[in-house]
Amino acid sequence: MSDQKAISRREFVSSIAAAAAISSLSGGSPLANAQEAAPSGQTQDVPLTDKPGWKDQGIENLAKSPHAKLRDIPVRAVTIEAGFWARRREINVTKSIPTMHDLLEANGRMNNFLRLAGKSNSPQTGPVFSDSDVYKWTEAVGFVLQSGDRPELREMAEKLIDEVVAVQEPGGYLNTYYQDDRKSLRMLPQTQTTGHELYNMGHMLQGAIAYYRATGDRKMLDAGIRFVDDFLLPNYGPAPKKPIVSGHPEIELALIELYRITGDKRQLDLAGYILGGDSRIELPERRTIYMFSGTPFTARTKMQGHAVRAMYACCGATDYYMETGDDAYWKTLNTLWNDMTSTKMYVTGGVGSRADGEAFGDAYELPNFRAYGESCAAIGNMMWNWRMLAVTGDAKFTDVIERALYNGINSGMSLDGVMYCYRNPLAFDPSTGDKIRNPWYDVTCCPPNLERTFASLPGYFYSTSEDGIYVHLYDDSQLDWHLEDGTGLRITQKTNYPWDGSVEIAVSPAQASEFTFYVRVPGWSDHTEITVNGKALKGITPGAYLPIRRRWMAGDVVRLQMAMKPEVLEANPRVADDLGRVALQRGPLVYCLEGLDQGQGVMLSDVALRVGKPSDGEFQTEYRGDLLDGVVVLHHPGFVAEYGASEELLYSRYSGGAVKTRSVPLTFIPYYAWSNRLATAMQVWTPVLNA
Amino acid sequence: MSDQKAISRREFVSSIAAAAAISSLSGGSPLANAQEAAPSGQTQDVPLTDKPGWKDQGIENLAKSPHAKLRDIPVRAVTIEAGFWARRREINVTKSIPTMHDLLEANGRMNNFLRLAGKSNSPQTGPVFSDSDVYKWTEAVGFVLQSGDRPELREMAEKLIDEVVAVQEPGGYLNTYYQDDRKSLRMLPQTQTTGHELYNMGHMLQGAIAYYRATGDRKMLDAGIRFVDDFLLPNYGPAPKKPIVSGHPEIELALIELYRITGDKRQLDLAGYILGGDSRIELPERRTIYMFSGTPFTARTKMQGHAVRAMYACCGATDYYMETGDDAYWKTLNTLWNDMTSTKMYVTGGVGSRADGEAFGDAYELPNFRAYGESCAAIGNMMWNWRMLAVTGDAKFTDVIERALYNGINSGMSLDGVMYCYRNPLAFDPSTGDKIRNPWYDVTCCPPNLERTFASLPGYFYSTSEDGIYVHLYDDSQLDWHLEDGTGLRITQKTNYPWDGSVEIAVSPAQASEFTFYVRVPGWSDHTEITVNGKALKGITPGAYLPIRRRWMAGDVVRLQMAMKPEVLEANPRVADDLGRVALQRGPLVYCLEGLDQGQGVMLSDVALRVGKPSDGEFQTEYRGDLLDGVVVLHHPGFVAEYGASEELLYSRYSGGAVKTRSVPLTFIPYYAWSNRLATAMQVWTPVLNA
Repeated sequence: MSDQKAISRREFVSSIAAAAAISSLSGGSPLANAQEAAPSGQTQDVPLTDKPGWKDQGIENLAKSPHAKLRDIPVRAVTIEAGFWARRREINVTKSIPTMHDLLEANGRMNNFLRLAGKSNSPQTGPVFSDSDVYKWTEAVGFVLQSGDRPELREMAEKLIDEVVAVQEPGGYLNTYYQDDRKSLRMLPQTQTTGHELYNMGHMLQGAIAYYRATGDRKMLDAGIRFVDDFLLPNYGPAPKKPIVSGHPEIELALIELYRITGDKRQLDLAGYILGGDSRIELPERRTIYMFSGTPFTARTKMQGHAVRAMYACCGATDYYMETGDDAYWKTLNTLWNDMTSTKMYVTGGVGSRADGEAFGDAYELPNFRAYGESCAAIGNMMWNWRMLAVTGDAKFTDVIERALYNGINSGMSLDGVMYCYRNPLAFDPSTGDKIRNPWYDVTCCPPNLERTFASLPGYFYSTSEDGIYVHLYDDSQLDWHLEDGTGLRITQKTNYPWDGSVEIAVSPAQASEFTFYVRVPGWSDHTEITVNGKALKGITPGAYLPIRRRWMAGDVVRLQMAMKPEVLEANPRVADDLGRVALQRGPLVYCLEGLDQGQGVMLSDVALRVGKPSDGEFQTEYRGDLLDGVVVLHHPGFVAEYGASEELLYSRYSGGAVKTRSVPLTFIPYYAWSNRLATAMQVWTPVLNA
Repeated sequence: MSDQKAISRREFVSSIAAAAAISSLSGGSPLANAQEAAPSGQTQDVPLTDKPGWKDQGIENLAKSPHAKLRDIPVRAVTIEAGFWARRREINVTKSIPTMHDLLEANGRMNNFLRLAGKSNSPQTGPVFSDSDVYKWTEAVGFVLQSGDRPELREMAEKLIDEVVAVQEPGGYLNTYYQDDRKSLRMLPQTQTTGHELYNMGHMLQGAIAYYRATGDRKMLDAGIRFVDDFLLPNYGPAPKKPIVSGHPEIELALIELYRITGDKRQLDLAGYILGGDSRIELPERRTIYMFSGTPFTARTKMQGHAVRAMYACCGATDYYMETGDDAYWKTLNTLWNDMTSTKMYVTGGVGSRADGEAFGDAYELPNFRAYGESCAAIGNMMWNWRMLAVTGDAKFTDVIERALYNGINSGMSLDGVMYCYRNPLAFDPSTGDKIRNPWYDVTCCPPNLERTFASLPGYFYSTSEDGIYVHLYDDSQLDWHLEDGTGLRITQKTNYPWDGSVEIAVSPAQASEFTFYVRVPGWSDHTEITVNGKALKGITPGAYLPIRRRWMAGDVVRLQMAMKPEVLEANPRVADDLGRVALQRGPLVYCLEGLDQGQGVMLSDVALRVGKPSDGEFQTEYRGDLLDGVVVLHHPGFVAEYGASEELLYSRYSGGAVKTRSVPLTFIPYYAWSNRLATAMQVWTPVLNA
């Protein structure tokens, strides 16, 4: 059950004392220039009021959130065993996170801290948001450690946390960029707008919270609290304090998660103040659109602007709703969700189609080759839908989470865990010279974001509610947790999902107990069978949770059989780029064509399908254990258009759609696995022949 | 014949003397800070060696260009009478150019000069390229005056020229941005890359040359020569001089046109040095792609980067080829032209599809809603093709000129002459809130560029060659000029083109004379009839000039009948955004649907056509004198899809292409005339139904 007694109150080491020590060691430390003296009321080990205790908190701690219907389970409660995500998660821990640590060091991200502690003479390196890379990496490690100790990662993180907190200034300020000549720019309106100070600290808080929930170690968390309580709250907020504008939303959701630990309502209120952004700092409309902030969140009517900013703002606003129940927020959130999912989301769950401004496009603006679909934006989409799901228990949000996770997020990391996508296009032509996967980006937001997401994955499998438990995701896994009434509960999933649509779920409460087991029926599964101990259930609706209320006891088995027939999808005809094209999906996986799986000389740009009639042929599925770490590939007869001379013309007289074709076999692979071999052409949306 | 004797050598007023006078009047003039003293060898009225004289020079003076096959006629040689372009040109002179003058003043563009002369205390205003706005406006006036005096415009221009030359520094430097604190930045590598100093002066030279060719007045031209001869040539160029990189190509073509006046080969060589750009100033590859410069022009293999930069670079390179005959240039120019016209040009002649970087996209990347298609880039496309045409006499270049001129350029200015497009999209949804036409842009490159283009238009109608004369464009107009052997020639076109496909061309040499009259047969006219004095000619090929060699005499009449049937065009199937869609073209005009011409409740996003079979119905043409200053509209039966519930879904199961439709009449207007009424939806490419 709840592990409150185990809360470790590690000794608080004052960063001021540490800084002073370093200062005296190093002589002219930059800290000597600190502009603010330690205020008399400085935070010293704020008592935490969080329940449940750190060890039992999930990705979010919604235990006391009055407007959350569902509550997170801790990450450690679910063990993902031999299934689809097990390999990805292991590579994340053994390859991605360690190599990213080295890359962060090699690219000066840690040096930025060391130089402030007088331990390095190298100059500041990297963009204004460089600190956030370090914090997101820390959060990834925090989530890993929530699943169990990994001493080598814990040691790396402890060292890093020491280096971070050592350079916090006496007044609570912490940032490695606004130093030296740039000190005078701190928190100026222009800096708030573009300087990412609060964005960095939002990630610092998220990292600190994940680490605290893994270890109970408050060192970094207390530094975060000092920033908020000593620097932010006394100086910034509604007049007569100085105004805040959120140049890149992130602090909002972090402040609210902090509030869920400290119980300090000022932190929640500050998040509300930031979300309520008005003309406190005059900004051009273009900028407030881009930032998805600076104007009241509740005045928004459509998804627009920088996609990651928009997603993080929506996360913060949903968190704010869960704590306050402010209906204006709920209305806006649903308006935005409907706008996004009905006009602005890729079939992969990626969002933010426009490279220009890394932004949401207009309605139905979903280019494929030029799809931006930043990995961070797909992650933000998943994070936001996770919060919307918590409010409602509505499976439409889980459908989006699954779509983004298996496709537009999963594509973001190479199978070997060391190459990352920033963009996740839905079509690719290697002749453009684009390099889609890279080990490092100077704007390296996506790699550690992917790492923290995969590390936190077990926390997304289940939620509890007052009346029972929800299962959201399927994979070979085991839950060891309890119902909200304290009844111990083990749930074991045996499945080869997503390659196979059958899941055997053993539901074993510690003692026989009546509760509702909410089984998610994916929206894409048009024919789903669910049995309990062999007895078929009725009322199964795609895109809904089937509530199974009964007296459960050890040995009960739920069997779920989802329809895994490859589905041919079309886009709304207003999506110009998908007109006359189809995409394939099997289970949660969107498929694509990659050039090197097709016959010699077959150009993807000339490929077409005939589908819809029996004579058009069937999809054949084939599990290929040797390919791309093991995937089900799809085969279907297709065509290559032989355009002849007209192919060379950009515009020509309308041919009436009659194109000469020859038959070719086509092989589709899961989209997430593209670009893990030789770079060849790729496309998700394939033209259909009607003639 | 040639009007050399009329060359006016107006008295040269030294700008230094003027500046000194102002300086002594105003006290501490900023000129007192000029960093360079007047060099002893300062240019004083360089003797000009240009032939023919100023009055007989065309848009380009190719009289002595060894690798030009065609030679420009002067703008004044053609009078456009009551035809299609007459109204546009008159509005350009009476509305566009005067109001732009006022806007330039109101937005501080002239104040930037006045403040340097000590006549204003207001600060520098506008971006780094603000001077170029003034110069392009001057060029527009220059072209207007080449067609005949307009005293009110001439007076405005004379005042402006005085204000410009007054602030030229003793060393020849002239720029209103790199002043005061910014003086130290002049011509630094970073400034050359992004500061537009040479771009501004390229436009200054073009303005000066157009004004000189209109009036014989050398004042501004001499200031330009001083900049080149006193500032640029002595200090910049191959080592040991300081290096040059062309941050925004423009100076290249201007230097070569200056060379065509001065005969000073150093100016041509400097252009060649700039076009040969190598690693003289180290720049990231991304930047040299964007700038379309900084690496040797002849090393380019595809059209890429900022579209206006690319077009101006290609203009300069073609000019360089016309003077030098360097085959490497010719090879590259043709490679680039083929790449652009077969993969990267809109059906409107617009280029530069990508908003991000105002750039050429990848091959076949031609989005419609998000089409960038900057007006300046379409103009650059026309300018470049004009030069390619001069080299070859090949009508494929004229086809591009006409396509750009009538569509992607002509759309750039509103019918009332006071609103301008920066972007020229091929589809528009007013719900996005985009304002496509505006009276002013802070980056106001396009409006005066459009003005100079329309003012120079008569110069594009004909060219001479050794053996005769070429007619490129058709409109109600009269040429009064002469063949290269001096034989006087009047050509009168009577036509209602482009509404009608028949042109009556009276060819009247001063005395009977054998020469070739090259009649352009547009590529879009698949059936063209040409008669001379009623006798039909053979050998007529679309997209070629028909050479008519005979002994011409007064009273000869050529009749041309082009096919004006509306043509249904399809794009190469690799253009994702046009797949399953068609565009309409009639004569040189591309058509579009605009929402407010369709039935009530008809959403353009749901409209489709059936075309290609007799049962699909015919296009009806209707001249509407009351509409959009008089246009031929096209009517065709169409369909509105009734998607029902699926319309609300972004992705759904493939319907097999079967969509319920109802019939609606559709009305198409010429693309250039869109967005001149209430803002409603617009699209050029309409889906076709095959089922």
